[in-house]
Amino acid sequence: MKNEVTPTLRWNGSAKDGHLKMIDQTRLPIELREMECRTVEDVWEAIKSLRVRGAPAIGVAAAYGVVVGLQSLPECTDRTHFDVRLSQVCESLASSRPTAVNLFWALERMRRVAAGASDLSSSALHERLLAEAQQIEQEDRAMCAAIGRHGAALLADGQGVLTHCNAGGLATAGDGTALSVIFAATAEGKKLQVYADETRPLLQGARLTTWELMQRGIPVTLICDSMAGWVMKEGRVDAVITGADRIAANGDVANKIGTYSVALLAKAHNIPFYVAAPSSTFDLSLISGAEIPIEQRPSDEITAGFGRQTAPTNVNTYNPAFDVTPAEYVTAIVTERGLIRPVNRETVTRMLTPTTARQGVP
Amino acid sequence: MKNEVTPTLRWNGSAKDGHLKMIDQTRLPIELREMECRTVEDVWEAIKSLRVRGAPAIGVAAAYGVVVGLQSLPECTDRTHFDVRLSQVCESLASSRPTAVNLFWALERMRRVAAGASDLSSSALHERLLAEAQQIEQEDRAMCAAIGRHGAALLADGQGVLTHCNAGGLATAGDGTALSVIFAATAEGKKLQVYADETRPLLQGARLTTWELMQRGIPVTLICDSMAGWVMKEGRVDAVITGADRIAANGDVANKIGTYSVALLAKAHNIPFYVAAPSSTFDLSLISGAEIPIEQRPSDEITAGFGRQTAPTNVNTYNPAFDVTPAEYVTAIVTERGLIRPVNRETVTRMLTPTTARQGVP
Repeated sequence: MKNEVTPTLRWNGSAKDGHLKMIDQTRLPIELREMECRTVEDVWEAIKSLRVRGAPAIGVAAAYGVVVGLQSLPECTDRTHFDVRLSQVCESLASSRPTAVNLFWALERMRRVAAGASDLSSSALHERLLAEAQQIEQEDRAMCAAIGRHGAALLADGQGVLTHCNAGGLATAGDGTALSVIFAATAEGKKLQVYADETRPLLQGARLTTWELMQRGIPVTLICDSMAGWVMKEGRVDAVITGADRIAANGDVANKIGTYSVALLAKAHNIPFYVAAPSSTFDLSLISGAEIPIEQRPSDEITAGFGRQTAPTNVNTYNPAFDVTPAEYVTAIVTERGLIRPVNRETVTRMLTPTTARQGVP
Repeated sequence: MKNEVTPTLRWNGSAKDGHLKMIDQTRLPIELREMECRTVEDVWEAIKSLRVRGAPAIGVAAAYGVVVGLQSLPECTDRTHFDVRLSQVCESLASSRPTAVNLFWALERMRRVAAGASDLSSSALHERLLAEAQQIEQEDRAMCAAIGRHGAALLADGQGVLTHCNAGGLATAGDGTALSVIFAATAEGKKLQVYADETRPLLQGARLTTWELMQRGIPVTLICDSMAGWVMKEGRVDAVITGADRIAANGDVANKIGTYSVALLAKAHNIPFYVAAPSSTFDLSLISGAEIPIEQRPSDEITAGFGRQTAPTNVNTYNPAFDVTPAEYVTAIVTERGLIRPVNRETVTRMLTPTTARQGVP
């Protein structure tokens, strides 16, 4: 089953005349259409227009965007011209989503490879840069797979599993984080029934999570966010698993708005609440979740999110992008290094400090 | 301020040539437009198309619909013909929303008035029927006002109040139930900040509750349902108040899906959770909420509710219309007879049994 799944993005061909192919996520869930990026402008537009989204996937797309952007040079360009073009391409791609940390991280990694290979010819460096982009993609796949491997044992055959937002493969080059755990448990032969919160205001659960699970043939039922407590009360949910945007040193988890409510409802029903996230999601400089600033999003996501106005003109709204779930509500955090359980300052430190977390790489 | 508010429905003129005027709720919240119903077909269509909605408001509209429907008779029609036409009109109106209990209750009440007045001429009975419809409207207004009066003391100046769905004046001839409490507290000079859950899937909070509060100049902030827990955590909410669809003898409350989650989140934050509902909402034949069957609603309310498809074709959904909040989570129930507090079988019985609750009149 898994082999049939279309990858979020992939490289086809050589550095010189290959191209980046990716799922156009703006067409989902209505249509699965892949698009080919053959110029740096194609990649720029795809990132800008959210055809590719999710921090790791954006990083991978940008890295391949560098390779694509260097194809416009004539053969046997000298290194000086090549390096100038490389700078231009990186600057251009960096402007596609100025708030995406992974974008800058990936572009910086590509720049460093070039800077450290002053002895290579342009064409050899071009191949080397493709190899680096492929390495970034492979690391992301390996991270997703490791999270799935460590988390699969948390879910048992026949269980109902509730998830919020989309922490799936569409945001990564691999299987995602929370969904990777579900995919891995399913691959072990466990039958799961997933409940996907639609996740207002932007409906990532309705649009993306359901789609990914249906692609894999995993039973999924879409519910409104307001129904999460009731499906728990009815005994339909044995475990909750979500992703994370940022995790503080004490284990407090910032994630999509609504996660806090789901965690609290899970606790009230004695249902374990798991978070799946790579070690790069941890920011040990944050003592607790109280230090995480909360982004406020535009009003029209709430008042006109479905294609037409559904609230009075000029109504006041409050639209925080995410919330912070205290560590005490988190049963375990699944990282690519293993499980953090219980979740507190000591267990987080122990998992994160032996080898330093990669900086800025979700 | 209150005098400027357009009533949900009102009668203009005499029985013979007056008409029913009502807010066309399908235009809300974009536009406040009143429509005039001058034939029984107008009233039928208004109920059928949800231009008027909410059990009490439908009952009042149907009663006035009877008066309108009898206007087509020539002057000095004999009572036999008048009674035949009355039957036809009632049958027609009863078919507009076959599941609306209040519709049948109001029509039956009009029929009984006619049956008990065999000595009246057609024109005198026509006037008598208008008086009965006005009486139904007045009783509804009085019920709403009494709920407001009893509940206002629960809210203090400067408080944040969260509500779910729409339990406002648009569903009644008066000020509604939960919103009546808010209106009454505001009329006492208390400044409140209301948080309105948008209430997926049908967005009654976004469309109607915000509109009603804005009409009255009461500060309201629209949030997604998933944000309720977080605004509580941030200390913005001092009380929660909702309406009820049905209340069992032990105080378990069936109400719009999502109410259970809100009640549980309120409890976790030590915030009082109030329910405002007339005594007619209680069904003492139900021992507990477990006996209340839960209506399942169509999938497309979740997948394509607002003009475009937002989930994969053929995705499985679960769409219960309401949930049941256990009495232990309800701090008090505000009825037109007074407060039930604490909420349990004894206190419910004490409030409901001295005088028998009207049957079938929410």
